[in-house]
Amino acid sequence: MIRHTVVFSLKHEPHSLETKRFLHDAKKILTGIKGVTHFEQLRQVSPKNDYQFGFSMEFADQAAYTRYNEHPDHVAFVRDRWVPEVEKFMEIDYVPLGFG
Amino acid sequence: MIRHTVVFSLKHEPHSLETKRFLHDAKKILTGIKGVTHFEQLRQVSPKNDYQFGFSMEFADQAAYTRYNEHPDHVAFVRDRWVPEVEKFMEIDYVPLGFG
Repeated sequence: MIRHTVVFSLKHEPHSLETKRFLHDAKKILTGIKGVTHFEQLRQVSPKNDYQFGFSMEFADQAAYTRYNEHPDHVAFVRDRWVPEVEKFMEIDYVPLGFG
Repeated sequence: MIRHTVVFSLKHEPHSLETKRFLHDAKKILTGIKGVTHFEQLRQVSPKNDYQFGFSMEFADQAAYTRYNEHPDHVAFVRDRWVPEVEKFMEIDYVPLGFG
C-alpha cells in the first residue's frame, strides 16, 4: 500500500465558488481514475502551517501509483486545474513502516 | 474527527538501533494515552521531500486532542525523546471537508 497525500492552498478565497468548484471537480476526476482507493478531501486545521486543504488516496502498489501519475485524466487535471489554481503545495507519500 | 499527523526525520541513522528504539517507544507511549485512535507509524517515500517517517493518529474531537497534548506522558515524550532525537518535523492536522 502506498498512501499518496498532498497538502495545499488555493489561489481562490477559501469559501468561494471557485474553491468549491475546484474541490468538486478534483474529486470527480481523480476518483474516476482506476487504481485510486480511499480518496479523501480534508481541511487542514493546524495553526502550525498555513496550508488550507489536503487530498489523500491509496494505491495497491507502485505500479498502480505510476499508472495514476501517467493517466491522461491526471495529466490533464494537473495541467488545466492544479497548476493554474493551486498557490502552493507539498506532497507526502507513506508506506506502512513494517518494522522489526 | 481530527487526524493529527507529523512528518519527521530523526538524527539517528535510518536503520540504526536508536531509530528502532525511538519508533518502538513512541508507539508504546503514545498509544497508551487515552483518546488516541487509529495510530499509525509510516515510512515517507516521496522523493519530493526528505522527511523519513510519519505518525498519524485520530481524535474524536478537539477536547480529546487537547487532553492528549496536555497529558503528562505526551509532555514527557516530547521533552525527553522528541526534542533530543528529532532532526526536523512538520505537523499537519486534518478534519473531513464536510463540503456543500
